[in-house]
Amino acid sequence: MPANEITLPTASDFHIHLRQDAMMRMVVPRVAEGGVSLAYVMPNLRPPITSTEQALTYKAHLEKLAPNVTFLMTLFLSPDLTPDEVRRAKQAGIVGGIIFMATLRPLARPHHVPLSPFPGVKSYPRGVTTNSDSGIESYEIYYPVFKVMEEEGLVLNLHGEIPSDDEKVCKSNLHETWQTSPNCDSISGIPFSLLHQDVCFMNAEEKFLPHLAQLHADFPKLKIVLEHATSKAAVDMVKSLGDTVACTITVHHLELIVDDWAGQAHHFCKPVAKYPHDRKALRDVVAEGHSRFFLGTDSAPHPHTAKETAHAHAGVFTTPLVLPYLATILDSFGALDRLQGFACEFGKRFYGVVEKDGHGGRTVTLKRTSFAVPQTYNFEADVVVGTEAGGVVPFWAGKEVGWRIVKG
Amino acid sequence: MPANEITLPTASDFHIHLRQDAMMRMVVPRVAEGGVSLAYVMPNLRPPITSTEQALTYKAHLEKLAPNVTFLMTLFLSPDLTPDEVRRAKQAGIVGGIIFMATLRPLARPHHVPLSPFPGVKSYPRGVTTNSDSGIESYEIYYPVFKVMEEEGLVLNLHGEIPSDDEKVCKSNLHETWQTSPNCDSISGIPFSLLHQDVCFMNAEEKFLPHLAQLHADFPKLKIVLEHATSKAAVDMVKSLGDTVACTITVHHLELIVDDWAGQAHHFCKPVAKYPHDRKALRDVVAEGHSRFFLGTDSAPHPHTAKETAHAHAGVFTTPLVLPYLATILDSFGALDRLQGFACEFGKRFYGVVEKDGHGGRTVTLKRTSFAVPQTYNFEADVVVGTEAGGVVPFWAGKEVGWRIVKG
Repeated sequence: MPANEITLPTASDFHIHLRQDAMMRMVVPRVAEGGVSLAYVMPNLRPPITSTEQALTYKAHLEKLAPNVTFLMTLFLSPDLTPDEVRRAKQAGIVGGIIFMATLRPLARPHHVPLSPFPGVKSYPRGVTTNSDSGIESYEIYYPVFKVMEEEGLVLNLHGEIPSDDEKVCKSNLHETWQTSPNCDSISGIPFSLLHQDVCFMNAEEKFLPHLAQLHADFPKLKIVLEHATSKAAVDMVKSLGDTVACTITVHHLELIVDDWAGQAHHFCKPVAKYPHDRKALRDVVAEGHSRFFLGTDSAPHPHTAKETAHAHAGVFTTPLVLPYLATILDSFGALDRLQGFACEFGKRFYGVVEKDGHGGRTVTLKRTSFAVPQTYNFEADVVVGTEAGGVVPFWAGKEVGWRIVKG
Repeated sequence: MPANEITLPTASDFHIHLRQDAMMRMVVPRVAEGGVSLAYVMPNLRPPITSTEQALTYKAHLEKLAPNVTFLMTLFLSPDLTPDEVRRAKQAGIVGGIIFMATLRPLARPHHVPLSPFPGVKSYPRGVTTNSDSGIESYEIYYPVFKVMEEEGLVLNLHGEIPSDDEKVCKSNLHETWQTSPNCDSISGIPFSLLHQDVCFMNAEEKFLPHLAQLHADFPKLKIVLEHATSKAAVDMVKSLGDTVACTITVHHLELIVDDWAGQAHHFCKPVAKYPHDRKALRDVVAEGHSRFFLGTDSAPHPHTAKETAHAHAGVFTTPLVLPYLATILDSFGALDRLQGFACEFGKRFYGVVEKDGHGGRTVTLKRTSFAVPQTYNFEADVVVGTEAGGVVPFWAGKEVGWRIVKG
């Protein structure tokens, strides 16, 4: 007879986008609604959070909106970060630093090709730095930063994808403004052989994994988290590495495969959901109760107008219902008994963090009962920054979830 | 010095969706605008075209809208089609019959799971018919139809994808209305082992290919066209088979990879675009000038409101600019000299068809000159069927193409 009610410690979300301004004011109060009392906060604001001072200012905003949540802050890493700033960050209680998608671009990238949305990360061409003969970029430019992070005990968070081939830039975009000879065999001196590695969204994570292994070998004491893993290859790699390497898994990647985001903008995120066997590997490692795999939702709200359009923004919004979603999904593959370790314990143990005074010891109770996910979460207009009111469509909008938070 | 002007015979599009009503009235006149004078017309109307009479009525509508285009008609195949109807079709000049995506569903499919949009094709569960121990459905139910088609010389067109795993229906959709035991190991008596083959949109075509080989072995004289191939595996398979098996390739699959439809509804189509190495295989076989690979655009217009939404319809609209797109794309990989064979000759040769009286011998001239693709093609409201006015966003809307039709 399966349990119809479960009581857990409040959960920890080790990868969350809380945004700014009006969107932030809508999202932050939802953290606790989802059963979460500890949020590991992503720094990709506009501008990105690259200093201790910015992080503390942002943290103050968040705490004002949700005094009962522990916010752990991160820096947007750049090779320019000084050792002093890393030490200052540690002293101020900042926990980690993240590199979003590793950006490799030819030095003289044509102007019409979109640059990384994260200007804090410098770009270096393949073949120019060492360790890049596989055609993917090197992280050595960050090594001085990693060294101080390792010494100081900051955690390195990695969006583990390499960029897709740039082949198209030269070979097939002749219809664009920028042109090369149809027979060009290089871009800015980088031969096509290095720009043509069959990299695309479906294998960008797998092709990143050798870098993860190399980083771990070079900094064995540095705690590294591979963020929002989506593939069997990633699960296998993280398992094979030492105790200083962990992995977050989102709610939605435990549920979606490639078919689900094909033409379905609200399921489109990066990294993209992959094959059924990849989803199975994620479920299996959760069902196994492996303590280096824990919850990081990567919940990333966008106005529905930025989703239901020709070029949808990447991101799935799960914050308001994290535990109801998770209980329903884990229940579906017989792993409900792993919910507590995955969502409440393993992450804090890996990070070695505790919730702020008075936050520990709280619990949340879930009951097996169906209810419909709201169609939208509305946010207000922001007269200061000049943004309009709108709504965010959550994961499984309008569908039934099987578990409800009844206390907590 | 590359040519700056080329003159070709008008092209043939061996896979086109011309729609009905207001959409049809917008699309059909665009066929000739794209440099095409022969259109092989898909029968997936509402209701689908399953009889000679329907096909001839539809053809009369099309010819009225575009008297200068040769329309070759097809039937929507169903196992119910009688040998007499096949013979009647042949006598009436119908050229082929198509099976869209092979639909396998458990017999007692839960009511909330969407059925195939093509009700003409019957569904049979895996494991029930022979030849299905690989977990994919059998075509033997169609064999009487294929036999008469082979005898009569009709062409079999195949949408070569098998359906994705149904595993989710049972295992993870507990949040939906329909529920099973969390530990269920079958649906309607079909064991999960047969429903769990790692099939998804990225490998559905490759996993179909053994069926193509089997059909060809069983009906060696039946002309079979694998429609809108997207994978290296498909190219390799068709090459390996006999002269009665051919393959259409769309405009957009020569250009797109998976990254391009991730979050980009106007690039979403079925089969989905795949890896860079798959696109390269399609380009290579066109560059090679292989005569069993020819143009079938699968141009499939949808109102932009059906694309820029939570659940986008599948299809890319290329009809108005087929030759400008193709010249630009083939030029980009140095295969402009293959345009004539690919777009104008190989298809007609394989099918053994000629254009209707007075249509042969026309030419079209393309000039190397840039112009912007329109943002939209508008269609009118249809008071009879009660549909609203709207617009269709074409492929590469707003982008530059490098070749323009200047005469033809």
